[in-house]
Amino acid sequence: MSKHFQRNLSDLKRQLLQMGALVEEAINLAIQAVVDREPKLGRKVVEGDRQIDKMEIDVEEHCLMLLALHQPVAADLRFIVAVMKVNNDLERMGDLAKNIANRAVDLARVEPLQAPDLLRSMVERAREMVRNSLDSLVYLNQELARQVCRDDDLVDTLHEKIFSTLQADMGRRPEVIPPALDFLSISRHLERIADLATNIAEDVVFMIEGEVIRHRAQEEENPGQE
Amino acid sequence: MSKHFQRNLSDLKRQLLQMGALVEEAINLAIQAVVDREPKLGRKVVEGDRQIDKMEIDVEEHCLMLLALHQPVAADLRFIVAVMKVNNDLERMGDLAKNIANRAVDLARVEPLQAPDLLRSMVERAREMVRNSLDSLVYLNQELARQVCRDDDLVDTLHEKIFSTLQADMGRRPEVIPPALDFLSISRHLERIADLATNIAEDVVFMIEGEVIRHRAQEEENPGQE
Repeated sequence: MSKHFQRNLSDLKRQLLQMGALVEEAINLAIQAVVDREPKLGRKVVEGDRQIDKMEIDVEEHCLMLLALHQPVAADLRFIVAVMKVNNDLERMGDLAKNIANRAVDLARVEPLQAPDLLRSMVERAREMVRNSLDSLVYLNQELARQVCRDDDLVDTLHEKIFSTLQADMGRRPEVIPPALDFLSISRHLERIADLATNIAEDVVFMIEGEVIRHRAQEEENPGQE
Repeated sequence: MSKHFQRNLSDLKRQLLQMGALVEEAINLAIQAVVDREPKLGRKVVEGDRQIDKMEIDVEEHCLMLLALHQPVAADLRFIVAVMKVNNDLERMGDLAKNIANRAVDLARVEPLQAPDLLRSMVERAREMVRNSLDSLVYLNQELARQVCRDDDLVDTLHEKIFSTLQADMGRRPEVIPPALDFLSISRHLERIADLATNIAEDVVFMIEGEVIRHRAQEEENPGQE
């Protein structure tokens, strides 16, 4: 590997981690907007998403440049392709954070309903998964990647619990149907963020091991509420 | 472009269109399972998803082989990268069809509720978007790609109408909350399939024009129910 390529690769990794930090912050802010009923914070997330979108384009152009200029093969090629996929997933996580933030704006307009208790744990877990999935890629840490895959089951369980609680609330008090649907939507967005982090982790394992755990895991997945 | 590369590229396009046809068929079957209350059909979709998963891996390996062997640059490089992204999106559409099919299995167990009338139009539109987005890539048809982007607004409107109808149903008849939530979930999955087709179409336009319509469109998007 040429020194020039190596330096470019380090820059790319740094860029990806920066983008990950922005996404994590967006998720955090979006949920704070929901829990504290602060639609203004929500609007900040919506505006901040433009920066994430811009970074996605930069990272993709960087990858294309590396491919065209250095024409890497084998492990280096697979790494750059993985970065392009992760980049895409990060941008989608940013969109999901924006969707959560939009729900905060909605929630401030309807009948108040307390945020489900488990939402906080779900957010903590999802953010950690995002961070760990990126770290597993940048440091090629297979054990960390496998941890992310395991954590996804926990997030799914939390989502199912939140779903059941909200469904019961709606049955008892029809007036809370609108905010309950907003919370359902938020919980689902968090679950999808966790899924995207899991995709990243699976790609990392696949890249390191050449083992397809992705589809095997899907077959075993709990066909519960998506 | 060498003849060998050209032949490989044609094979890749054919592979992608085959995968698209499988995804379309899965969406169709999943919705039929829901509307006709035929959980058996739903199980067929769940099993068929393995074939789509397998094709995703084949297409990715094919792309990596083309990159390593022919080291394409400029337009050819961008095309292969686009195929890798589209491949990923198709696999996710297959997962969404599977999620819809799982709801069919659920719906057969709870209080019957007639499927929302607009679901049929939504499915037709979403399937057409999937087909057109792939055709726009394979035939580099920018006009068709732009058509897909416009159609996405229609699907979003249909989803919002279905959402409002179901929300009103739940308020009036709490006993239909479980099936109504299933239908909401199905409508959302269809909307996401349309979103993924739109991502593909935006990538095609970006590739042909080098124009970033993607993020501009996002800024204008209706922040309605996701």
